[in-house]
Amino acid sequence: MLELAFTPDRRDVRPLYRQLGGYLRDLIEADRLPAGGKLPATRELAASLGLSRTTVSLAYDDLIGAGLLTAHVGQGTFVAARPAGAAQRASLAAVDGRQFVWPGLLAARARALAVPPSLIPHVAEPPRFDFRGGRVDLDSLPAGELKRAFAEAIAEQLPALVADRDPRGWAPLREAVARYLVARGIACAPREVLIVNGGQHAIDLVARVLLDPGDTVVMEQPGYFGAALAFTAAQAHIVGARVDEDGVRVDELARILRARRAKLVYTTPAAQSPTGAILSDERRRALLALADEVQVPVFEDDYDSELRYEGAPIAALKTRDRAGQVIYAGTFSKVLFPTLRIGYVVAAPPLLEKMLLARWNTDVASSTITQAALATLLERGGLERHLRRVRKIYAARLAAMLGALAEHMPDGVTWTTPRGGHAIWLTLPSTVDGDALAVAAAEASIAVPRGDAFFVDGRGSDNLHLAFAAVAPATIHEGIARLAQLVRVHTARRRRSAR
Amino acid sequence: MLELAFTPDRRDVRPLYRQLGGYLRDLIEADRLPAGGKLPATRELAASLGLSRTTVSLAYDDLIGAGLLTAHVGQGTFVAARPAGAAQRASLAAVDGRQFVWPGLLAARARALAVPPSLIPHVAEPPRFDFRGGRVDLDSLPAGELKRAFAEAIAEQLPALVADRDPRGWAPLREAVARYLVARGIACAPREVLIVNGGQHAIDLVARVLLDPGDTVVMEQPGYFGAALAFTAAQAHIVGARVDEDGVRVDELARILRARRAKLVYTTPAAQSPTGAILSDERRRALLALADEVQVPVFEDDYDSELRYEGAPIAALKTRDRAGQVIYAGTFSKVLFPTLRIGYVVAAPPLLEKMLLARWNTDVASSTITQAALATLLERGGLERHLRRVRKIYAARLAAMLGALAEHMPDGVTWTTPRGGHAIWLTLPSTVDGDALAVAAAEASIAVPRGDAFFVDGRGSDNLHLAFAAVAPATIHEGIARLAQLVRVHTARRRRSAR
Repeated sequence: MLELAFTPDRRDVRPLYRQLGGYLRDLIEADRLPAGGKLPATRELAASLGLSRTTVSLAYDDLIGAGLLTAHVGQGTFVAARPAGAAQRASLAAVDGRQFVWPGLLAARARALAVPPSLIPHVAEPPRFDFRGGRVDLDSLPAGELKRAFAEAIAEQLPALVADRDPRGWAPLREAVARYLVARGIACAPREVLIVNGGQHAIDLVARVLLDPGDTVVMEQPGYFGAALAFTAAQAHIVGARVDEDGVRVDELARILRARRAKLVYTTPAAQSPTGAILSDERRRALLALADEVQVPVFEDDYDSELRYEGAPIAALKTRDRAGQVIYAGTFSKVLFPTLRIGYVVAAPPLLEKMLLARWNTDVASSTITQAALATLLERGGLERHLRRVRKIYAARLAAMLGALAEHMPDGVTWTTPRGGHAIWLTLPSTVDGDALAVAAAEASIAVPRGDAFFVDGRGSDNLHLAFAAVAPATIHEGIARLAQLVRVHTARRRRSAR
Repeated sequence: MLELAFTPDRRDVRPLYRQLGGYLRDLIEADRLPAGGKLPATRELAASLGLSRTTVSLAYDDLIGAGLLTAHVGQGTFVAARPAGAAQRASLAAVDGRQFVWPGLLAARARALAVPPSLIPHVAEPPRFDFRGGRVDLDSLPAGELKRAFAEAIAEQLPALVADRDPRGWAPLREAVARYLVARGIACAPREVLIVNGGQHAIDLVARVLLDPGDTVVMEQPGYFGAALAFTAAQAHIVGARVDEDGVRVDELARILRARRAKLVYTTPAAQSPTGAILSDERRRALLALADEVQVPVFEDDYDSELRYEGAPIAALKTRDRAGQVIYAGTFSKVLFPTLRIGYVVAAPPLLEKMLLARWNTDVASSTITQAALATLLERGGLERHLRRVRKIYAARLAAMLGALAEHMPDGVTWTTPRGGHAIWLTLPSTVDGDALAVAAAEASIAVPRGDAFFVDGRGSDNLHLAFAAVAPATIHEGIARLAQLVRVHTARRRRSAR
């Protein structure tokens, strides 16, 4: 067995377990940990490296999820068999006596790329209770309408779809999106709409044209992890503004923005990600006045406003944008499904023009077949019909989630009660051992992302993000009951060890 | 009429006409050139600004293409009517007395974004003779097979396609691509294949993880403009290596790479873009030995190797890559069609892992419906059938192009005779006035990109890139005959003015 000589790097922004996972992965890929070899037990490795057992467990879990390790109950953890191609190449390289060394070649900016929480395998797939975000109900997908829309696009329009050269997007989709937005009070013409590959793409393109290394972005904390990842990848400096039940605290934004020059404010006013809070009318006015005062652009990520189950629809910030300083982004990921990869941005021409160039440089344009099918679905009211269906389903699941939490969670646990969206945000009392709870939940096949993914400064270990949209009510009840039991167990344990 | 006070910026990398176009656009968008206002005649404005008339014409053409100006024959050029949304916003802003000012906020790196030549409107759409690149034959598209593949993917697999979370791509497509590549001698497993949105995306992702501002990239000159745009957008320094009839000159690469540290070599060995030259076997060996000597990664853009009309298939550089230092990228843009937006990358795990993170940050993953349909097409041999069809069509068009050039072009004009691909590369004698020819060709509705798009240093004004894949043989003959006539006219003119 190879001696494992891992030293944590304090400058590395990754959590310890990801650093350890990376170290083990490098050894495996360099064939220094051969296939079939047994790894030390987590307790043993934790002791020898001076790390917590949880850290070692999470690192092993990552590599199991990545197919590099295999776990056999009662036997231990082993290096997985390599895929045929890799083995062949490795052996060829061994003949030549050399293997190309990549790490020193990677760009400094590549070090700013972090693993999105959605790619961290916490539990064996598929988990029995899957409360991870970004999922939709699979039973209510509009398969028939989609199938017809794609078939018609190909049968009737393929030559035009193939010949299209407009990186702003397929004109009928831009027209349909513009009509939809005008109906929601956002004044825009089709030529002001840029079709992109979903909300993440909109954020990334704005980062590309507005942010240089060291620039400041102000965003909600907790806030959407994908935005934080994109801003971090752009080597920007993220300053967080706190969130309460009325959304982001504009007084805090004001304090930050008056003290330092920021290039961008990122916000989710319709359903704050991850808490679900709706930005109050008073704060909307204050935010726009502030943005005008300090002349900062505001990115309005309107990812979730159509999933509202009670109360009147809320007008976007963009509807009040007189000067053209709000960058408005929407997506079909939540209202249809994420793997469609279509979203849109409305922004002032000087910015949109630059985004268009950045977009061409990145991947030219979005698939026109998908755009044409989506345009047809929109024109025929298919999206509205689908929304009417899923709003009922998701409202029932939100009710089930809130009911189960009220019934099962011990005193001291609190959570948000959103009026829409797809998830709730839960806060554990400080007496709960969050690390131990995460390991226990994974062992119980409960997939529930920890709150730290939604903070850029390591906070959030007391929070859980519980998405309900893709989970049936009975499963919600059972999963929350089990999770509540684990919370009780790990509260008691910390209490005991504190005594 | 507003006084036009444009001063060329020598530090600006854009050609003069694009600078002038940007200046006029800013005035229009700030409402300082009101809708309906008449612009000065090109001759008049050229004289007052000390620019050539061609520069002013091209700037006007750009803005006409962008819908900001309109031209009325015999009357002149006018500022176009603004779209309704823009006008409304402009008037709201006028009430408030302010409009948000973007230019000062744009990132320094946004200034490195240049307009791809495919987006520069040289002629009124649609041109009668369209020799622009990146186009495929619209009459031979496999519409029936595609329609069935999409319909089956949606009818039979939609829940799995919606639930997929793997940013490497849809597993059956990665398997199909790996099988295809193994059959071509490239040892790879599905987990070593990353599905991306076409070849441009592969280049951009590699730039994101390998290049910091100021890093050096060595690429062929002339070379693929999309690669140059992506490397420039990454603020890298591009050093060019010349190309001859055997592809890139490896002796020149050696001189460059031994003199300075480069982070990447970008090359198109199977069909050099834009000349179509095949990298000789001797140079392939020399290139890999050199890359090993100086430890530089090589990006092999294999965009076009399947479009070969004579001779044996050529093995990719990647088939001889022992150390894992070749980054191999392929695309379905040429063999099927560009707006499908699907390509793939095979690279060593440490690099691919970082690219995967960059990819998630950018736009999460490619559309799974499209990936599933493409996987079905590949599994059923639909791509091979389509290739057999289009190879015959394109071979005939290549023959038509070469025949027409031989028949019509005056002495002194030379061109490449590729054995595959979709375009030829033509060199005009220095006696031809390239600027005047470009304007005359546009007026004759002949769309033919000038060679300068394929150089990073302003060379190429004596070259034309003539794509033939999307043009019927009779149209090729007529278009080339007309172009040849214009070449004659503009040779004679320069000769006369030289006397």
